[in-house]
Amino acid sequence: MLKIIAINAGSSSLKFQLFEMPSEAVLTKGLVERIGLDDAVFTISVNGEKQTEVREIPDHSVAVQILVDKLLSQGIIESYDEITGVGHRVVHGGEKFADSVLITDKTLAEIEALSDLAPLHNPANVVGIKAFQAILPNIPAVAVFDTAFHQTMPEKSFLYSLPYEYYEDYGVRKYGFHGTSHKYVSERAAELLGRPVEQLRLISCHLGNGASIAAIEGGKSIDTSMGFTPLAGVAMGTRSGNIDPALIPFIMEKTGKTADEVLNVLNKESGLLGISGISSDLRDLIKASGEGNDRAETALEVFAGRIHKYIGSYAARMSGVDAIIFTAGIGENSDVVRARVLRGLEFMGVYWDPALNGVQGEEAFISYPHSPVKVLVIPTNEEVMIARDVVRLANI
Amino acid sequence: MLKIIAINAGSSSLKFQLFEMPSEAVLTKGLVERIGLDDAVFTISVNGEKQTEVREIPDHSVAVQILVDKLLSQGIIESYDEITGVGHRVVHGGEKFADSVLITDKTLAEIEALSDLAPLHNPANVVGIKAFQAILPNIPAVAVFDTAFHQTMPEKSFLYSLPYEYYEDYGVRKYGFHGTSHKYVSERAAELLGRPVEQLRLISCHLGNGASIAAIEGGKSIDTSMGFTPLAGVAMGTRSGNIDPALIPFIMEKTGKTADEVLNVLNKESGLLGISGISSDLRDLIKASGEGNDRAETALEVFAGRIHKYIGSYAARMSGVDAIIFTAGIGENSDVVRARVLRGLEFMGVYWDPALNGVQGEEAFISYPHSPVKVLVIPTNEEVMIARDVVRLANI
Repeated sequence: MLKIIAINAGSSSLKFQLFEMPSEAVLTKGLVERIGLDDAVFTISVNGEKQTEVREIPDHSVAVQILVDKLLSQGIIESYDEITGVGHRVVHGGEKFADSVLITDKTLAEIEALSDLAPLHNPANVVGIKAFQAILPNIPAVAVFDTAFHQTMPEKSFLYSLPYEYYEDYGVRKYGFHGTSHKYVSERAAELLGRPVEQLRLISCHLGNGASIAAIEGGKSIDTSMGFTPLAGVAMGTRSGNIDPALIPFIMEKTGKTADEVLNVLNKESGLLGISGISSDLRDLIKASGEGNDRAETALEVFAGRIHKYIGSYAARMSGVDAIIFTAGIGENSDVVRARVLRGLEFMGVYWDPALNGVQGEEAFISYPHSPVKVLVIPTNEEVMIARDVVRLANI
Repeated sequence: MLKIIAINAGSSSLKFQLFEMPSEAVLTKGLVERIGLDDAVFTISVNGEKQTEVREIPDHSVAVQILVDKLLSQGIIESYDEITGVGHRVVHGGEKFADSVLITDKTLAEIEALSDLAPLHNPANVVGIKAFQAILPNIPAVAVFDTAFHQTMPEKSFLYSLPYEYYEDYGVRKYGFHGTSHKYVSERAAELLGRPVEQLRLISCHLGNGASIAAIEGGKSIDTSMGFTPLAGVAMGTRSGNIDPALIPFIMEKTGKTADEVLNVLNKESGLLGISGISSDLRDLIKASGEGNDRAETALEVFAGRIHKYIGSYAARMSGVDAIIFTAGIGENSDVVRARVLRGLEFMGVYWDPALNGVQGEEAFISYPHSPVKVLVIPTNEEVMIARDVVRLANI
């Protein structure tokens, strides 16, 4: 019986989930927040009950130490040796990593070298990896990349129509993100449809605070809405998605902001928040729209409208579609968004049942049984994908 | 019998076409190039024969004077008075102009004020307007805007997911361009289909050196691929179309270029030219691809692939489509591009005949008679739209 821990490290946070494999039972999960800041918070679920401690946690190594001690003191493990392997979510694998990889000195150096492409994320992921190496030096570790699943995209999908040397010299291309999630839900959809994923054309809509759409043909990502960075594609909570690139110099000139400051606006003050002026949280906007707030209503329309158009676009990309999948916070829970996204797709064979669409947070078909194109809600599970890849690659 | 002249003025050029109305017969047309530079060139077609003169033409007023003198000396008109009206193409009408407009002191000032939104184009258009006012002060003049047709777009189409105050304060929104062309071909398509335009959902692909796609529902533009500027949307001859906006600061940092310099790269060194490294001219790329040049082939794939995806997107936008229209240089002439764009759209009812697709530069259906979605090639004619609007608005 294996115990595998899946880790998602941010610059001041560490999310963890401990799996028993191969049963995939979740033994415990939790979160360390405000690492290196005043009043760090350690939260862990034990037997379904949440325990929270506020204490000093100066760095990620201390966070890992506290986590392991907690697992021991709660009797979840009886010794360090019981942790069989650790899997780390890493945002950017560049063109180097088309699959998860066992972490060695060499691959860790390669992950660090990719920080240029993901300056906010990869360094934090590396900190998490090193913290586990410090506390648990003898267990195998695997890196699972957000970009890897999309490495199957052909050049016509990933290449920008920019001077080609930008691709050769600086790695300027579409990478795509949320790959672990898109992969999970596409495989799960094939199971639910009872058909081999190799025979399916799927459109996966990962709609959370970040959102991306993927065209998945025969189990392989062939196009996705995010790009060189997670800013591109559809409108999101606070991110703009695609805009006319000429707007950046224009806004710089009008506001006196630098390019980096404008980029910050596009990442943090745009999207649903920017249009509505109220909130980046979809639930707030649905409420406000119901109370007659026009800009909240417009934000919802823009959000759903662009996803709707991506579905048409990716159906064209694959010469048709067999199933559309909704996942992540909004995709799993918001019948309002799903209804707005799906409305008017009958011309391409999408017939869905408003009654079934009420489902929240569980696997379900929301298309009519006779619909040529199936529509599914599938809660995502990136953590279990990480645990599986640890088992597969650590050879345990 | 009316004689109306349609004008398209650039910063150092002046294109003209003289119509007899209402017959819409073209009496003559031509072009003045290199105005204000050494060795300006005046070209005019008389009875189907091209006459070219190289001479000094210091400014647009002189160009207009030479033009009118030429019309007299060639016997195309017998006196100045015979020119009944003039229509000027103006690139940007902002939110002010949802239709063509009679030029008065007031409307001319408004057009000049819009130069902020089109700093390269509107000032040149205004120079053309003033040159005609100087030489032919007594004839009515009408401005016809590239943006006007798209003013029917709803907020959910034209609003970027940026802070809303950028829209209120600086007019940051999608305007769209090529409106006169999209309007012409959509009206012509309705005639060829024998159905009222009010009942049709059309996707118009204007594919020239600049390229844009429009979704036209009931005769009204409801979405289009160009944006705040003509840089946005599909890949073009030298323009990038949409890219991840985060690439601008990234490229600035990597290359040491300013934002405006990067914008210049996106406008002039990207698109087909950027990817292929060879040429912005599609014909060169088709030839090179045939000779085994991989990057030329990739450029073609990217170009056609993004148009293909827009068609899916806009079909979704309108809950289906009745006809797809190809126009402008590439759209009218390139069977290679049309074939690549149309391939794989059978799932949404598009069945086209490779034999019919051979057509070049003339009106034709290239869909099979039984195809639920019709596909048409329609040569565009922005000039006749300008002439018609002069007759309509100048009340002559």
